[in-house]
Amino acid sequence: MNRYEAGKFDVIVVGAGHAGSEAALAAARMGSSTVLLTIDLDMIAFMPCNPSIGGPAKGVVVREVDALGGEMGRNIDKTYVQMRMLNTGKGPAVQALRAQADKNEYAQEMKKTLEKQENLLLRQGIVEELIVEDGVVQGVVTHTGAVYRAEAVVLTAGTSSRGQIIIGELKYSSGPNNSQPSIKLSENLLDLGFDLARFKTGTPPRILASSIDYSKTEEQPGDLEPNHFSYSSKDEDYLQDQLSCWLTYTGTEAHQIIRDNLHRAPMFTGIVEGVGARYCPSIEDKVVRFSDKPRHQLFLEPEGRNTEEVYVQGLSSSLPEEVQLDVLHSIDGLENAKMMRTGYAIEYDVVKPHQLRPSLETKLVKNLYTAGQMNGTSGYEEAAGQGIIAGINAALAVQGKEPLVLKRSDGYIGVMIDDLVTKGTLEPYRLLTSRAEYRLLLRHDNADIRLSEIGHEIGLLPEERYQAYIEKQVAVEAEIARIKSIRLKPTAELQAFLESRNSAALKDGFLFSDLLKRPELDYAALYPFAPLEEELPKEVISQIEIQIKYEGYIKKAVAKVDKLKKMEEKRIPENIDYDAINGIATEAKDKLKKIQPETIAQASRISGVNPADISVLMVYVQSGRYTVLENSI
Amino acid sequence: MNRYEAGKFDVIVVGAGHAGSEAALAAARMGSSTVLLTIDLDMIAFMPCNPSIGGPAKGVVVREVDALGGEMGRNIDKTYVQMRMLNTGKGPAVQALRAQADKNEYAQEMKKTLEKQENLLLRQGIVEELIVEDGVVQGVVTHTGAVYRAEAVVLTAGTSSRGQIIIGELKYSSGPNNSQPSIKLSENLLDLGFDLARFKTGTPPRILASSIDYSKTEEQPGDLEPNHFSYSSKDEDYLQDQLSCWLTYTGTEAHQIIRDNLHRAPMFTGIVEGVGARYCPSIEDKVVRFSDKPRHQLFLEPEGRNTEEVYVQGLSSSLPEEVQLDVLHSIDGLENAKMMRTGYAIEYDVVKPHQLRPSLETKLVKNLYTAGQMNGTSGYEEAAGQGIIAGINAALAVQGKEPLVLKRSDGYIGVMIDDLVTKGTLEPYRLLTSRAEYRLLLRHDNADIRLSEIGHEIGLLPEERYQAYIEKQVAVEAEIARIKSIRLKPTAELQAFLESRNSAALKDGFLFSDLLKRPELDYAALYPFAPLEEELPKEVISQIEIQIKYEGYIKKAVAKVDKLKKMEEKRIPENIDYDAINGIATEAKDKLKKIQPETIAQASRISGVNPADISVLMVYVQSGRYTVLENSI
Ligand SMILES: Cc1cc2nc3c(=O)[nH]c(=O)nc-3n(C[C@H](O)[C@H](O)[C@H](O)COP(=O)(O)OP(=O)(O)OC[C@H]3O[C@@H](n4cnc5c(N)ncnc54)[C@H](O)[C@@H]3O)c2cc1C
Ligand SMILES: Cc1cc2nc3c(=O)[nH]c(=O)nc-3n(C[C@H](O)[C@H](O)[C@H](O)COP(=O)(O)OP(=O)(O)OC[C@H]3O[C@@H](n4cnc5c(N)ncnc54)[C@H](O)[C@@H]3O)c2cc1C
Repeated sequence: MNRYEAGKFDVIVVGAGHAGSEAALAAARMGSSTVLLTIDLDMIAFMPCNPSIGGPAKGVVVREVDALGGEMGRNIDKTYVQMRMLNTGKGPAVQALRAQADKNEYAQEMKKTLEKQENLLLRQGIVEELIVEDGVVQGVVTHTGAVYRAEAVVLTAGTSSRGQIIIGELKYSSGPNNSQPSIKLSENLLDLGFDLARFKTGTPPRILASSIDYSKTEEQPGDLEPNHFSYSSKDEDYLQDQLSCWLTYTGTEAHQIIRDNLHRAPMFTGIVEGVGARYCPSIEDKVVRFSDKPRHQLFLEPEGRNTEEVYVQGLSSSLPEEVQLDVLHSIDGLENAKMMRTGYAIEYDVVKPHQLRPSLETKLVKNLYTAGQMNGTSGYEEAAGQGIIAGINAALAVQGKEPLVLKRSDGYIGVMIDDLVTKGTLEPYRLLTSRAEYRLLLRHDNADIRLSEIGHEIGLLPEERYQAYIEKQVAVEAEIARIKSIRLKPTAELQAFLESRNSAALKDGFLFSDLLKRPELDYAALYPFAPLEEELPKEVISQIEIQIKYEGYIKKAVAKVDKLKKMEEKRIPENIDYDAINGIATEAKDKLKKIQPETIAQASRISGVNPADISVLMVYVQSGRYTVLENSI
Repeated sequence: MNRYEAGKFDVIVVGAGHAGSEAALAAARMGSSTVLLTIDLDMIAFMPCNPSIGGPAKGVVVREVDALGGEMGRNIDKTYVQMRMLNTGKGPAVQALRAQADKNEYAQEMKKTLEKQENLLLRQGIVEELIVEDGVVQGVVTHTGAVYRAEAVVLTAGTSSRGQIIIGELKYSSGPNNSQPSIKLSENLLDLGFDLARFKTGTPPRILASSIDYSKTEEQPGDLEPNHFSYSSKDEDYLQDQLSCWLTYTGTEAHQIIRDNLHRAPMFTGIVEGVGARYCPSIEDKVVRFSDKPRHQLFLEPEGRNTEEVYVQGLSSSLPEEVQLDVLHSIDGLENAKMMRTGYAIEYDVVKPHQLRPSLETKLVKNLYTAGQMNGTSGYEEAAGQGIIAGINAALAVQGKEPLVLKRSDGYIGVMIDDLVTKGTLEPYRLLTSRAEYRLLLRHDNADIRLSEIGHEIGLLPEERYQAYIEKQVAVEAEIARIKSIRLKPTAELQAFLESRNSAALKDGFLFSDLLKRPELDYAALYPFAPLEEELPKEVISQIEIQIKYEGYIKKAVAKVDKLKKMEEKRIPENIDYDAINGIATEAKDKLKKIQPETIAQASRISGVNPADISVLMVYVQSGRYTVLENSI
């Protein structure tokens, strides 16, 4: 191919999936001239798997992306067909919003946003090579010979990287849903010295809505009470005519069919070489691993308002097509289901994430960032969460500024990236609430409190959205201060009300805030006894309630975080010579050399590195007399 | 691959492009259980080139498809962003409707229609092999090993057939717009003995709307006066807020850039092996062939309401990307245009159409039909026109009925198919009004008159639409009869009116219909002098005007057609032994053996077959004593 100079940009983003869209928008919004190159302009923010966004931990990530100034939350708020708050019966730490998306509209809307973004050029093209000079990335080359130069490059190639689709005995080269795979970019990464792993993920069949007997399933309608992913969405825009999902189950017959065909299941025959996700298993995997479970839940989810395609959540499979059909037809309500797309597994290349810094910059090539599925995660939200950080850090690098590294206590995004770069991952990594040690701090309701300040400071969260956040904060704090100072008198009305709620009677005046701590009472009920001139918005009230009711727990968690902060602030010099340190165990040294932690805190989280090793390391670093190597890795 | 039985259908359609969608809908609506298999369910009725439907001849085809009971007309009426009647200043034979489509909505809407169609199963899958036994097709096999059996199979693989994209020095295997190509099906057709040609077509770059300086271009707004493609669409649904197109031109600078880079133009360097369409040339082709033309028109067409992509009609090119950029930037209004997709050429396999019967059944394999781009045409409308006929004939074959063969006088569809199967084509075939000898009969306004009866008889046009057509016909005929019998008196008012129109005064009473023949007069103006109780709908009035005003010409054309009809009715027995006929020239014999015409009329249109040969053939056939071969071809 003849090459030509296609232009000089600040930032290049490769791949317009969920990671790439956020990365490109973040960089452009922070003022970097950005080009976003992608294989197919008709597959932007494409959902090759479930047509939904959110859920436990993942939903919080969407709000974190939103609080930083990202797009996923706004995009789903514009294109959902159903919205539900999960775990409403449980505490605020595990509540999670989940939306069914109109798959086509979701993609169209994101494409439009990218097209309209200032500083951003969206262009169809297949990136085949990185230009690297002296260990610093300089640009990329596309299949048409176009050389794009930039100061920073973000790769988000997703499952297209040497993708191979697997169905039963069949295996062929393809990106998701029979799209063109990306082959040369992977080869180029190998040439550059990157260590790639092979992961796999899978998707269930899609069936025709009119072929489902819904009477044999349970309806799962959306919520009536308005909710949104984006802090800027309005209650009055909440969708009234939502689409329902439907619940059914696999049964003994389905499980028998699967067991009878395990000799043809690529997962077990050796055809699948990539490593699949434990937390997102295929149905054949579930039947084998949980052999005593008589049934598994299946959710029938519409793929959009304008289509008859229905996604069978829970039935991900790479069994031969005929077996998938038999399994489907053994399920209540799906006896006559017409399959429109066959489930499949896809194998793809992953950049083993220990090769990344917490900024998502690669250690091997300066100013090169990777994000999303290609870092070993699975999921749209995980991709978006990394994408926005990679885009931010690319833009900050261009500005000559320090990278943004979210701490584990800042958000699930911080947890995820720290897990990836510190522990690596041997299988597709999904966010789970259990991965966070500060679950009660990383709530769905307070992502704005955790991250708006950061989003604003780096120049990503727009001023008017920041002001709205500040107003909300002021209102919350003012009202907390007020109720902490108002003593409610034991009037006859109040006592009668308390009795009606089975709440102990007051002997004396009692702080509004203390009364609110009683589990059987809430703000709305107490409010009439100490009203304001004007009622507060509901998100302010819910914030007040959570902060007061969980005050004790939150304080404890914050105290722990503060203690850790000191460790987080203790930086380890780059390229430190671990071999020169006496007293660190050999295994710990090997791990430290591989991961190259940037702080003592990060080092302490590496498995195989013990507290004793950390003490030695800390003393050594603080002594100031450490040796540094010329070239690490 | 392990194979399995995926079901028995009446009709299988392969490929859900413009041909396949019509074929599958026609077959299913005629009562055949039908399965439509396609590589990617997200690319149904996808428009890889211009986002528009209609224009001269092509627009008439859309109305013919509609009159038969097809979908294209209704689909574009639901999804256009601009509608224009072309050539309104000229006679009714060349008037043509043209609509800009919302590309994404067009595809979504067609997908929904397919999903909702009774008797029709839409399924993602790649067909790799035909099952043929004793020269009769029995079904198909997909990449997943699924064996679908049916009595008839329609192939509409389009430009995906061993597609190769070409841009400058680059050539790679791909379907349109970086989709997966179809490779094994082509190889299977070769194995079965089909003769394939290699054609090519091309598409221009797409640019970002906001990067265009529209002030340097001329606006081309849509029509205010309602028009529709489908006879069932209503005036009150006509779109008010249409999008404009914009006109600009290439100039000497653009032409110079192209000339300077001809050594890199794949069309001229030998990289393109496929044959391109003369009537749809690339810009480099135009510059070379019309070297004295100082400029060429370019229309900037929006790709939809929800996107910033703009199609640069007239700038189709496979020049290297950098040259395309230079050319773009040399054009008025596009100085700063941002290119989003690069123009490219695509090469693909074509079943040389002399291998087809006028029913679109292949001569080699019984009950196998091919339609669309793979028969050597180019264009969505040409594809739809063939698709509906192939679908109809597949369904008729299943019913054991005679195929539907439209005559050249029935419609442009008849012209096209006859051209293809009788003359073959050495390049991508486009419909042009000049291809029809009965242009005045094949009008945009009378497709319903020509084809509703047929559509209804074969069971495709629904009863209520047929009744609406009958009502319109009755109204037209009644009013024609009335105005042919009403003699307008030379009242003072009428004389004054005629004078105002510069029309000769009446001496005596004068037939309304004769007066209407005067070019300066129209029905609306004369109507007040002989009003009805209730005014007639506008499509009835326009029909009356055309039938009266062009009565003489139409009569002559009809007479010619009637004369030919006798020839059309003279069937040539299948597998007749041309070598046994004395007196036919050798060249004519060769052509007759290759084409195997089904009627004397078809034989007479074969180039190289002269009237003398036809006379001999006619006598020989009519004698009844002819020899028939066991196996032809
Ligand atoms: C079959 C399947 C099943 C899945 N199942 C699940 C699931 O059950 N649960 C779940 O949470 N997630 C699932 N996922 C994962 C989910 O789709 C991804 O996590 C998410 O899409 C990742 O986003 P991304 O931006 O990292 O990559 P992608 O969405 O894959 O986007 C990558 C983009 O980069 C483009 N690209 C790639 N290479 C190049 C190149 N060289 N040049 C230019 N552009 C390039 C691609 O065309 C694509 O547009 C599944 C994915 C697939 C394919
Ligand atoms: C780059 C380009 C430029 C063009 N330029 C013009 C132009 O300037 N003017 C013009 O009028 N027309 C143009 N066309 C042509 C226009 O796109 C086609 O005429 C029209 O789309 C043909 O419709 P079709 O149904 O025959 O095929 P297509 O629209 O190509 O549809 C074929 C379908 O079959 C599917 N398929 C193929 N093989 C298999 C298989 N083995 N199994 C299952 N499914 C299969 C494909 O995925 C596709 O969905 C252009 C096309 C391309 C690609």
